[in-house]
Amino acid sequence: MALNLFVNETVGSTFKVCSDLVQLLTEERLQFIDLTELVRERVRRSGVAHGLVNVHTKHTTTALVVNENEPLLLSDFKDFVERWAPRSAPYRHNDLQARRFQVPPDERPNGHSHARALLLGMSVGLNITDGEIDLGEFQRIFLVELDGVRKRSVSILVLGLAVESGEDRER
Amino acid sequence: MALNLFVNETVGSTFKVCSDLVQLLTEERLQFIDLTELVRERVRRSGVAHGLVNVHTKHTTTALVVNENEPLLLSDFKDFVERWAPRSAPYRHNDLQARRFQVPPDERPNGHSHARALLLGMSVGLNITDGEIDLGEFQRIFLVELDGVRKRSVSILVLGLAVESGEDRER
Amino acid sequence: MALNLFVNETVGSTFKVCSDLVQLLTEERLQFIDLTELVRERVRRSGVAHGLVNVHTKHTTTALVVNENEPLLLSDFKDFVERWAPRSAPYRHNDLQARRFQVPPDERPNGHSHARALLLGMSVGLNITDGEIDLGEFQRIFLVELDGVRKRSVSILVLGLAVESGEDRER
Repeated sequence: MALNLFVNETVGSTFKVCSDLVQLLTEERLQFIDLTELVRERVRRSGVAHGLVNVHTKHTTTALVVNENEPLLLSDFKDFVERWAPRSAPYRHNDLQARRFQVPPDERPNGHSHARALLLGMSVGLNITDGEIDLGEFQRIFLVELDGVRKRSVSILVLGLAVESGEDRER
Repeated sequence: MALNLFVNETVGSTFKVCSDLVQLLTEERLQFIDLTELVRERVRRSGVAHGLVNVHTKHTTTALVVNENEPLLLSDFKDFVERWAPRSAPYRHNDLQARRFQVPPDERPNGHSHARALLLGMSVGLNITDGEIDLGEFQRIFLVELDGVRKRSVSILVLGLAVESGEDRER
Repeated sequence: MALNLFVNETVGSTFKVCSDLVQLLTEERLQFIDLTELVRERVRRSGVAHGLVNVHTKHTTTALVVNENEPLLLSDFKDFVERWAPRSAPYRHNDLQARRFQVPPDERPNGHSHARALLLGMSVGLNITDGEIDLGEFQRIFLVELDGVRKRSVSILVLGLAVESGEDRER
């Protein structure tokens, strides 16, 4: 077991970093957008065989999560997001007159959106082995729109070793 | 201060990526499984001195978290997980007849497990310095089983520089 | 589109890993401490142009999050943190006599602090492109003190390619 601990150990191949900024227009106030194939595409095109893909949102009222893309479940998730940070709760942030800093021109009462984003998280790191994201059968990567409809950006970075054929070492 | 900002800066040594898939059988419906020593072992065997270890679960009803391994506290955490997403809440996902996609043969009513997983998160990135994970005194890495008993897989990837002795630079 | 998918693809430059341990004394029981400029400074000094910065706390009663630094919003966040894991809830962890392991000398009843930390998460991975963290306009990096006042440590690791001028490839 000791000698066989790591399935893959890769040394001395070409180290690469590839990045992309994905822009999309969300369609609902609260929406789960499945980015899995889009992220997979970036990993494949990067040529990275062993490494990491880090995905993060560039907004404070969206989240980045991994779970199952089952429509009834996503509908349950929307209920829970409302339960965890209700839209109707009182938010000081929604009192635009009271703010110390300049309010963006397209600002709306969205304290609940920020609280939900805080809870769900904004970045996910996933391992790449043999050129594929090491996701389980039911795992899908979602951007969660919490204050739509808006134009949104997601940052994707792939880094690791681009192994030429025959360079892989098994030990 | 300016010149001494980084304790470690390492350039030009061997860059390595090591990955492992850890499989385990969970024992309880809701269980915190301490993976710290297992992850530490992978980091040591990788030979990576300065870099990152990324750990993520491969399931949508488990979570990956870092906190203290104090039995009373883990018992408190179980209460909170039940409070945040009660098992008895109504879940559309639990209506197997209503689902649009094929239901896995071992499926059980587990909407609450998914909601808990969404909340707790599925990946953790930890820094490696001088060959050790930069964990604090009380920090332990846990796989959280939220829909046990099941066979589970955790993906571990270590990447960074494997410094030969004497290669380290302090500046 | 196919050829132009990645804005940046960088190969064969110098791979670097830089790490730093930031120590700070928190000032409130529940406090959001904006670390953005401090992390940006580490990224700039690292010289890494394309890569990743991973930031994590070294404590089990603090969290690491990204959201907006708007004072009224941070005040809302404090209310929600209290709502999600009330200080007044019963915590077995607070029964110091019942604990199986030795209790740290400076221990206080802080079950709620741990539960809050579990919920908010302890690490954030952010992409670096063209030498800058790829943060959105309103995104700021916070250490969240959940059991202050205490001395705290945050681990920062920057890894990636340090591109010399003229080495960048666009394709």
